[in-house]
Amino acid sequence: MPRELRLNAFEMASVGHIAHGLWTHPRDRSTRYADLDHWTGLARTLERGKFDGVFIADVSGVYDLYKGGPETAIRNAIQIPILDPLLIVPAMAAVTRHLGFGVTANLSHEAPYAFARRFSTLDHLTKGRVAWNIVTGFLDSSAKGAGLTRQFAHDDRYDRGDEFLEVVYKLWEGSWDDDAVVADRERRVYAEPDRVRAIRHSGRHFSLDAIHLCAPSPQRTPLLFQAGASKRGLDFAAKHGECVFLPGAKSDAAGVTADLRRRAAAAGRAPGDLLTFGSLQVVVGRTAKEAREKFEDYRRYAEPEAGLAQFSSAIGVDLSRFDPDAPIGEIRGDGIRSLAQTIGVNGDWSVRQLKESMTLGGRFTPLVGAPEEIADEMARRSESLDLDGFNLVRTHSPESFEDFVDLVVPLLQERGLFKADYSDGTLRRKLFGHDRLPQTHAGAAFRFRAAGG
Amino acid sequence: MPRELRLNAFEMASVGHIAHGLWTHPRDRSTRYADLDHWTGLARTLERGKFDGVFIADVSGVYDLYKGGPETAIRNAIQIPILDPLLIVPAMAAVTRHLGFGVTANLSHEAPYAFARRFSTLDHLTKGRVAWNIVTGFLDSSAKGAGLTRQFAHDDRYDRGDEFLEVVYKLWEGSWDDDAVVADRERRVYAEPDRVRAIRHSGRHFSLDAIHLCAPSPQRTPLLFQAGASKRGLDFAAKHGECVFLPGAKSDAAGVTADLRRRAAAAGRAPGDLLTFGSLQVVVGRTAKEAREKFEDYRRYAEPEAGLAQFSSAIGVDLSRFDPDAPIGEIRGDGIRSLAQTIGVNGDWSVRQLKESMTLGGRFTPLVGAPEEIADEMARRSESLDLDGFNLVRTHSPESFEDFVDLVVPLLQERGLFKADYSDGTLRRKLFGHDRLPQTHAGAAFRFRAAGG
Repeated sequence: MPRELRLNAFEMASVGHIAHGLWTHPRDRSTRYADLDHWTGLARTLERGKFDGVFIADVSGVYDLYKGGPETAIRNAIQIPILDPLLIVPAMAAVTRHLGFGVTANLSHEAPYAFARRFSTLDHLTKGRVAWNIVTGFLDSSAKGAGLTRQFAHDDRYDRGDEFLEVVYKLWEGSWDDDAVVADRERRVYAEPDRVRAIRHSGRHFSLDAIHLCAPSPQRTPLLFQAGASKRGLDFAAKHGECVFLPGAKSDAAGVTADLRRRAAAAGRAPGDLLTFGSLQVVVGRTAKEAREKFEDYRRYAEPEAGLAQFSSAIGVDLSRFDPDAPIGEIRGDGIRSLAQTIGVNGDWSVRQLKESMTLGGRFTPLVGAPEEIADEMARRSESLDLDGFNLVRTHSPESFEDFVDLVVPLLQERGLFKADYSDGTLRRKLFGHDRLPQTHAGAAFRFRAAGG
Repeated sequence: MPRELRLNAFEMASVGHIAHGLWTHPRDRSTRYADLDHWTGLARTLERGKFDGVFIADVSGVYDLYKGGPETAIRNAIQIPILDPLLIVPAMAAVTRHLGFGVTANLSHEAPYAFARRFSTLDHLTKGRVAWNIVTGFLDSSAKGAGLTRQFAHDDRYDRGDEFLEVVYKLWEGSWDDDAVVADRERRVYAEPDRVRAIRHSGRHFSLDAIHLCAPSPQRTPLLFQAGASKRGLDFAAKHGECVFLPGAKSDAAGVTADLRRRAAAAGRAPGDLLTFGSLQVVVGRTAKEAREKFEDYRRYAEPEAGLAQFSSAIGVDLSRFDPDAPIGEIRGDGIRSLAQTIGVNGDWSVRQLKESMTLGGRFTPLVGAPEEIADEMARRSESLDLDGFNLVRTHSPESFEDFVDLVVPLLQERGLFKADYSDGTLRRKLFGHDRLPQTHAGAAFRFRAAGG
């Protein structure tokens, strides 16, 4: 029996996300990113297509390495301007019933007390349909916004992240007992005080002595997404992530998923506790010919240089300063090679080859074809790379998601690769069969009655 | 000609706000505070009644002074649990066109960079209908959530607040020029890089070197509400506030508004730059008799002790520990007397009298009567206390706002005291005739071309 695939739309509350330049296409509506209608329309399209969720990327800084400044990013709207992604969720939730919302939030410059309330609020308002994509940030420009001179060092970010997670697990799982809220009008008791307690935490990075401001939400801890790709990042993902997103079209993703699953098992987690997601960029037509024509049409509007500028910040090297024919992996030795490969770029490529590969303005390789070809390739990748699902990146807005829903989803359903309809309940229940973190998850240790008492 | 009154609904994303205990009334729906439908329904009711806005209070701590702990607050849902108020706004905005959204946010434990993005996002998504009610917090329990042992000292909070405001003004007003975004598909330029600049700030409390993450929103700086009542608070309000909310039914509100307007003039602001809002609690029926019966019905469900518990935290004294017949003003000398009066309680009252006055569970004195009586009293108060409008507190949910819209609004309109319909444009334009901060406002100094360059 084929594995049932999970699908998220991969979006961002900005004009440019991955497919840079496509906002200039005459029919593209990416510039409507600040209109609520734009997002409620997308949410309706995705729910019509039985998508599991919309996964909203975020960045809280500017790509300012390329050519030594932010000019390329500003001119091309490379993820700047960008809205706070949490705030587009409530409007989308109000017009949907099942669609999940995976929201990226960088924990590095946040206070855990207020942060925990934000996600509990979203979990309440969406009736348990919210996921948090945990990121620790990588841009110095983001750190400068927070008053630092540069980003925390890589492994320090994850150590700080581990403690941040501990604090928010305590607030989400441990401050209110499951049955604290009784809302008993006769007895005039809304919540039982002896079932609510202050969380006291005193650690290296955070301290806190407070009752969580929110009553238990449907999932308590939001469903947790992670996308760590470094060794330390994989351990972090294997400990905390329930869904792990492996960005880029990595040739060795099978090795990565196997490695990740080994690390999760080592952390005491069950095999069914983890879903892996690959990334996917699709241009589909009713026929292969129509798809190819659509791709060529889109391509005329793409801006590969913007892709280079974004990639420069991702690897921390201004690619405009190097010989366009030298291999990327040799620019600064193996550090860059391994980093480039981690995020899906062949280290043997030259800057020129990389740029030429960015046919739709970004480093994802688009899959172009008739519905059958797309479905075949998705099944093949899922099988060979051990992926449970895909994050489908915005290419042309709104055509790409509409085309996928109209042309590919029915075929995936026919083949038993995709659900015919949603099941009821929270996002975690839809994906894993239960509302709360499983006992095997690190966060479960912080439950109000963790010891079964 | 009578002054046209401005009206906001005074709400909170919690079960109990001011009228404690009323959640137990059989028809009350306050326990639905975590349902989006509850808020979109309220928004529709308010827009039907041509309300200027919904003013959403917030607190980020627990009332834990009364009887030495949080038990009374938890049992009666005294503003706990409470959702993040920013997140209920987008769903309400999606179902309305004119209603404004005044959101309370405590700046004391926030990072200005991320904070500025949140309000810019809301201003974009609402198309310029957002206001920020600036508060600096007062609860030690809130400070403990942020990892401190107690709240910053009173005047320090305002000094820190002044610098916080300076930083966010710079981000909102000064990082992007008005015409930075060109979205020119032909030239393939989304924004002109030379019209965007990094904000560099290095101060006592904050430092920053970053481009604001959002393009100019319709109002840029959100409309600013303030509710300071102390001497330092009044100066802060006179400098920053465009709408000033004077909570409590203060006998000397006329003195306060005159004082406030003097301070605003001293800060260089024009007389028309400031609108004053009083608070109002109304129980209205088609007749005086019906109103009285409704009041007596509601009253049976009220919880005056919860009102005492909230008031204890407001003045920083556990009122359960004192002689119920001693004057409140003498409990700890004039500090408490003046503080109590500042927030609308007679310092000569005993705790017993205060509790008895809390007929609907809070310290606001309800106005009970037929529509004519309500309209008369509103006109009288507006005139005698120099108030431009009122924040109408939630009493019974949803009856109080529905009754007011159905019974009082038409009468106010008939009398020329309230608009027959909305005018177009942003919230600031609706109230003041312009979209952006006026030149006389402190924030205007930080514009991209402040010097006219």
